[in-house]
Amino acid sequence: MKKPIIVQKFGGTSVGSIENMHLVAKHIIKAKDDGNQVVVVVSAMSGETNRLLGLAHQVDSVPTARELDVLLSAGEQVSMALVAMTLNKLGYAARSLTGGQANIVTDNQHNDATIKAIDTQAITDLLEQDQIVIVAGFQGVNENGDITTLGRGGSDTSAVTLAGALKADECQIFTDVDGVYTCDPRVVPGAKKLDVIDFPSMEEMARKGAKVLHLPCVRFAWKNQVPLRVLSTFDVNAGSLIKGETGTQPICGLALQRDLALVTVDHDSLAALTAQCQMLGIEVWNVIEKAEWAGVVIKHDACAKLDLVFSNKIRNSEQVSLLTKVGLQAPELKEQCCALLAANNIGVEHVSTTSQSLMLMLSPQNIDKAANILHEAYIDSQLFVAVEAKHACSG
Amino acid sequence: MKKPIIVQKFGGTSVGSIENMHLVAKHIIKAKDDGNQVVVVVSAMSGETNRLLGLAHQVDSVPTARELDVLLSAGEQVSMALVAMTLNKLGYAARSLTGGQANIVTDNQHNDATIKAIDTQAITDLLEQDQIVIVAGFQGVNENGDITTLGRGGSDTSAVTLAGALKADECQIFTDVDGVYTCDPRVVPGAKKLDVIDFPSMEEMARKGAKVLHLPCVRFAWKNQVPLRVLSTFDVNAGSLIKGETGTQPICGLALQRDLALVTVDHDSLAALTAQCQMLGIEVWNVIEKAEWAGVVIKHDACAKLDLVFSNKIRNSEQVSLLTKVGLQAPELKEQCCALLAANNIGVEHVSTTSQSLMLMLSPQNIDKAANILHEAYIDSQLFVAVEAKHACSG
Repeated sequence: MKKPIIVQKFGGTSVGSIENMHLVAKHIIKAKDDGNQVVVVVSAMSGETNRLLGLAHQVDSVPTARELDVLLSAGEQVSMALVAMTLNKLGYAARSLTGGQANIVTDNQHNDATIKAIDTQAITDLLEQDQIVIVAGFQGVNENGDITTLGRGGSDTSAVTLAGALKADECQIFTDVDGVYTCDPRVVPGAKKLDVIDFPSMEEMARKGAKVLHLPCVRFAWKNQVPLRVLSTFDVNAGSLIKGETGTQPICGLALQRDLALVTVDHDSLAALTAQCQMLGIEVWNVIEKAEWAGVVIKHDACAKLDLVFSNKIRNSEQVSLLTKVGLQAPELKEQCCALLAANNIGVEHVSTTSQSLMLMLSPQNIDKAANILHEAYIDSQLFVAVEAKHACSG
Repeated sequence: MKKPIIVQKFGGTSVGSIENMHLVAKHIIKAKDDGNQVVVVVSAMSGETNRLLGLAHQVDSVPTARELDVLLSAGEQVSMALVAMTLNKLGYAARSLTGGQANIVTDNQHNDATIKAIDTQAITDLLEQDQIVIVAGFQGVNENGDITTLGRGGSDTSAVTLAGALKADECQIFTDVDGVYTCDPRVVPGAKKLDVIDFPSMEEMARKGAKVLHLPCVRFAWKNQVPLRVLSTFDVNAGSLIKGETGTQPICGLALQRDLALVTVDHDSLAALTAQCQMLGIEVWNVIEKAEWAGVVIKHDACAKLDLVFSNKIRNSEQVSLLTKVGLQAPELKEQCCALLAANNIGVEHVSTTSQSLMLMLSPQNIDKAANILHEAYIDSQLFVAVEAKHACSG
């Protein structure tokens, strides 16, 4: 019988020192000893990409895109070799492959390339020789054989795309947190780790500000039905598994997005404002129309760009934050939430709802307190119910 | 008319900082502006190879050879990208290529590979697009596409082999000295730079201890009739040109080789001793037979290896140095030299002569003084005569 294929991805902190690489090796070896075929995707050692970028910027404030990719891709080449050596030293056969050697072919968009195709033959040949295969994340080659890099979050993209191409049984993203939480635990100390979360809910969480996974990574895994697991390099627990289509997860969590701004205009300028955002490549988080004004929510640091070309029509811009409750919503929830927050002296500037999320626009200084109130009122209690129900089902 | 092709090689110190890379770029741009097609071979930034080796040795005292090559080859990838960026910034079209991208195919001997073939198509295509091509030295790929490295002096080998394959008009080795000197100027302050030196003499100089060029580099260039020029990254003079077959250069220089040992045995053990050296891969610099004893001259640090298996037959081993005068030798020179040194209280332990060299074995503490005496007596005076003759010819 064919052994399951597991793709494991380790980020920069995970391979940030030889000591940490030994922890990485333990996870790889466990997967191998459990009877899997293992393909590992690694980032550059933490700090290395910035060191290389620093050298490039000593040469040129805007270095040639092609050569910057050649430069940065050396970072993963170092870490993949060291991880392979570590496994070899521990008695496990392992080989490292650059993006090019792994036949990861991208478009020609240097510094922000998109993977077009992966010919997995080189990898499957090595797997058949019982090798553990270590692949450089974040990089590929274009059709001319020039080295390209994928841009931010690129190693996650490499991992899920490889998992899709290999028809892997699971793609494991190792990070420095041990799973997907109902809310950022630095904000809500009582946030709980979710054992399982469906793709639509995870996509909504990532889209509304949860940082644990990059949105394109979630979307790709969902589209290709690759079960995705988030877990910690520095821990042995099973993390969170993201799979399935249901989109009916009764509870999921709260996503926070800070550093936003509400830019308001007169109603008759709204169309021009949204068009301007699109032209400038500014993501619009929300469009709001009130009786007196209309506006868009955008990243705060995009305001300067917009001001340059549109300032004469802008009535006001103020910093705001978004707090999104993801999961199935009862119809009465919107009023309940606003009342509950009002009782705690927190004003809600705007509410948007979909069948799967309730998005509250708040003043930035209130978002942490609001998150704790809503988590206690809706997530903790539902979690309790959900755990009860699960026990009843499995009993 | 086809433009001349120049291959330029820059070592680790030359690309050791962004500041130095600007000096490198100046030399490249000069060659380009002079109407040449320019191919550049670069080493890793000085210190980088040792940094990477240090990481590998944290993992394993004997790291896997294949993975060590993957690791070390990242060093040249960084410097080649930075040199290409520097040229781009200065307005010159330049592209960098890894050993694999330049189609430098080696045998499978990881860490000490030999170049088997170079398909120059990728390079010539870029040259035809008027690009300056920057190639990673020291590295190639085997027939499976695995990264290999060439061992010490590898970037020089990359450069001359590329020059041979491209039928280049000249291969320029940039170092931190500005040419080939009649003797190491740190030993003989009056040593003179040679403008031209023929291949047989240069080969003899390199073989007998001159460090300016690696012996395999000289031999390859000679065999392929690639004119070789040694010059300094940190200077503008034309360096020394090595070319031609004559082997009749009346004067050339003095080569010094320290750190040797004379290992002596009884006559009837000499054959076994030389056989043992061959078996252990120990290079024999000289075989000496005297009335009382016989012996071999080997590297001092190879003695321990020899002691392990042969110590019971060794009569004595003592540290010695070799001072070799390279160039056409008058028959009476041998006695003259010994008499001259004896008059200065320097004993010569042994003399070997060929038509092109006179090799003196000395006690290590005498070699610097002896070099200065012979340089003054034979090189300075002949240099004067040679310069006179040259002026007479060109006049």
